[in-house]
Amino acid sequence: MLFMVEMLVDIPNSVPAEEAARIKADEKAYSQALQRSGKWPHIWRVVGQYANVSIFDVESNDELHTLLSQLPLFPFMKISVTPLARHPSAI
Amino acid sequence: MLFMVEMLVDIPNSVPAEEAARIKADEKAYSQALQRSGKWPHIWRVVGQYANVSIFDVESNDELHTLLSQLPLFPFMKISVTPLARHPSAI
Amino acid sequence: MLFMVEMLVDIPNSVPAEEAARIKADEKAYSQALQRSGKWPHIWRVVGQYANVSIFDVESNDELHTLLSQLPLFPFMKISVTPLARHPSAI
Amino acid sequence: MLFMVEMLVDIPNSVPAEEAARIKADEKAYSQALQRSGKWPHIWRVVGQYANVSIFDVESNDELHTLLSQLPLFPFMKISVTPLARHPSAI
Amino acid sequence: MLFMVEMLVDIPNSVPAEEAARIKADEKAYSQALQRSGKWPHIWRVVGQYANVSIFDVESNDELHTLLSQLPLFPFMKISVTPLARHPSAI
Amino acid sequence: MLFMVEMLVDIPNSVPAEEAARIKADEKAYSQALQRSGKWPHIWRVVGQYANVSIFDVESNDELHTLLSQLPLFPFMKISVTPLARHPSAI
Amino acid sequence: MLFMVEMLVDIPNSVPAEEAARIKADEKAYSQALQRSGKWPHIWRVVGQYANVSIFDVESNDELHTLLSQLPLFPFMKISVTPLARHPSAI
Amino acid sequence: MLFMVEMLVDIPNSVPAEEAARIKADEKAYSQALQRSGKWPHIWRVVGQYANVSIFDVESNDELHTLLSQLPLFPFMKISVTPLARHPSAI
Amino acid sequence: MLFMVEMLVDIPNSVPAEEAARIKADEKAYSQALQRSGKWPHIWRVVGQYANVSIFDVESNDELHTLLSQLPLFPFMKISVTPLARHPSAI
Amino acid sequence: MLFMVEMLVDIPNSVPAEEAARIKADEKAYSQALQRSGKWPHIWRVVGQYANVSIFDVESNDELHTLLSQLPLFPFMKISVTPLARHPSAI
Repeated sequence: MLFMVEMLVDIPNSVPAEEAARIKADEKAYSQALQRSGKWPHIWRVVGQYANVSIFDVESNDELHTLLSQLPLFPFMKISVTPLARHPSAI
Repeated sequence: MLFMVEMLVDIPNSVPAEEAARIKADEKAYSQALQRSGKWPHIWRVVGQYANVSIFDVESNDELHTLLSQLPLFPFMKISVTPLARHPSAI
Repeated sequence: MLFMVEMLVDIPNSVPAEEAARIKADEKAYSQALQRSGKWPHIWRVVGQYANVSIFDVESNDELHTLLSQLPLFPFMKISVTPLARHPSAI
Repeated sequence: MLFMVEMLVDIPNSVPAEEAARIKADEKAYSQALQRSGKWPHIWRVVGQYANVSIFDVESNDELHTLLSQLPLFPFMKISVTPLARHPSAI
Repeated sequence: MLFMVEMLVDIPNSVPAEEAARIKADEKAYSQALQRSGKWPHIWRVVGQYANVSIFDVESNDELHTLLSQLPLFPFMKISVTPLARHPSAI
Repeated sequence: MLFMVEMLVDIPNSVPAEEAARIKADEKAYSQALQRSGKWPHIWRVVGQYANVSIFDVESNDELHTLLSQLPLFPFMKISVTPLARHPSAI
Repeated sequence: MLFMVEMLVDIPNSVPAEEAARIKADEKAYSQALQRSGKWPHIWRVVGQYANVSIFDVESNDELHTLLSQLPLFPFMKISVTPLARHPSAI
Repeated sequence: MLFMVEMLVDIPNSVPAEEAARIKADEKAYSQALQRSGKWPHIWRVVGQYANVSIFDVESNDELHTLLSQLPLFPFMKISVTPLARHPSAI
Repeated sequence: MLFMVEMLVDIPNSVPAEEAARIKADEKAYSQALQRSGKWPHIWRVVGQYANVSIFDVESNDELHTLLSQLPLFPFMKISVTPLARHPSAI
Repeated sequence: MLFMVEMLVDIPNSVPAEEAARIKADEKAYSQALQRSGKWPHIWRVVGQYANVSIFDVESNDELHTLLSQLPLFPFMKISVTPLARHPSAI
């Protein structure tokens, strides 16, 4: 079951630089593990923004929320979720 | 070069039903030809809306505009285009 | 799997009164059948608007889109869909 | 009398972690007490957000405001309230 | 129990002038009956707009929706409803 | 001459608790004095928000701005002002 | 007492050209009479739009609404009104 | 003196196809004459939309409004105008 | 050449009170000098807000940007600029 | 391949003045190098704002994101990107 997930990152100035660097490294590792598992089949950078457009492939809404809320950057992101269905013209 | 394209369809009541049916059939054929060509690798239905989220893979902005403006439903759609880049965490 | 679905109805003046009445009767029958099936456990009127807030309980995004796009009033509604998950404080 | 209440939580960085943890624990206890009392019959997590959609069942607007303004997280939430009525198609 | 109700009227050109005049006369009579009953204690014109700000005093959300949905201009209005509570500084 | 005034309060965390308490006490006294004078005939709490909807009755725009800008909470509020006129259906 | 009034005109296609021309001529005459009376001291065109920014100088909200609602183009305009006060830095 | 002008075209269905074609041909001729004169140095298509982003180089606001309001498509466009100044980093 | 300029001031809490007072005094002197020069013919307070609506009369966009960017409060303001032209109904 | 890029700068108070000055000097040098290379053919100041409208000429979305994300002011800017195509009326 597919969802489009849009994530916009905004880390406030008050987070120390080393902590921010650690969180980003954790985020990268977490994201790549989910990509390898097949749960996060696409991630693209939005040009000009610290943001991404992603496609998630999950069993349920609960699974999706669990995956997203465990993102190391979750406290610093605005996330919007759009449920997707098969398009009748898709080949 | 990838772009996210969001299309929202709104065919006014004043378009006769047969004409609307013909336009939709043309749209489907046109979309499927582009999907087969590799230019339109993904199309998903937005749940609950007469809308889609699509990914286009083109050589240039000009090519993308040409493809979109030839959509049979183009006069009846609101389209927004988001340029995408490779994400540094993508595997 | 639960979704909040918000529906706002706007039937244009150009739809003849009898046709509008027939569509509304079909909508009511369709809605009540889904409510009885357990797929549409809650429907509330938004005070002061020709609109409702509903909860759907479905197996998948595809099932939800199928149910919504078959609503007799679908061509005359703006629909927004919010995926819901279990809340950690829910009893 | 039913109301849809949407709550979006945003605890600023300047709140110490222990204080935030205490407030969240208080919030959970307070919410569960109201759920048990029947005043707060539904609470759902919005997927991908630190937010919930809830249904409250109260005697009056004053009672609803009293319940909401005593939420331990009240100073850190954006809340919107939508009055609900019985839908004519509800079974 | 008090509610602020904001009503913005937009009668499309396609409604014949006599019908519009009749609906407005019905609206005025209906509004004045409710004002006399105490259900609609305040109605003010928004300067420069075909719109009003009103205060309703009702027993329940259901009563409020019934009163509003029976407004003769209801099909031609955008209505928003804000539940009000006693203010702690009110004398 | 009547105006609807909507006030939304947001006191930042950086204001010490005692100072905030003093400002709120001053605000209450100031508001009640204006209510007693007849300049501020109505004040209602917006349910679920640290906000109010008020009606002011003043001689001029200048008088209204003077009254509002002297509110002890003025630096911490978003205020919007809507001029009101007599409604032709008011009894 | 001064107010900024912003007017945006949108005459639908369904109004016959001669009727539109007559309404615009009436609007011009009405506007110029109010300008000569001192009630409408400034009117400027917004560059690139069928819109104006105006300053009105009136005795009361009621007078302003009367003047605006009698504009021949009133049924075809979106109007917003901003009450103005003397600025403490004005010379 | 430079201005960014954004134009979004929306020709309603009720305009006959031949009339629309004639207006578009007039628009093209008018635009190209202004481009040749140096008043309209840049015009770009917004990808996926019946819209353009343009740069105008004029002597005054009045000249710009005159040029824009004489566009054959003016009655069918939403136009926004942004005044531009020399950027201190421009070479 | 006229422009409407809307300025909304928001000085953050972190600016010391004396510095804020000095900036405001500088702003007042700067504004009054420009008013006397004829470059800033009108300034009005927006009722209920720390904001103004102003009219500037300048030779060019560059001159306007220079005047605005030298406002002592410039770093603490949101400014929007609307180019104005002579209205055909102006007397 | 052309893109319109709109950049709005907002450097928070918490950045020390010397650091801000250094970042701005770096930004200017970086911008001028790109302008000289032909990648950034136009940059204009938006009148009244700490913002610019720019045109970029790049080979791909990836190149554009790389250029933008290396802007010294990137962490302090809101950027929006609009892909442009050749306009059929362009001479």
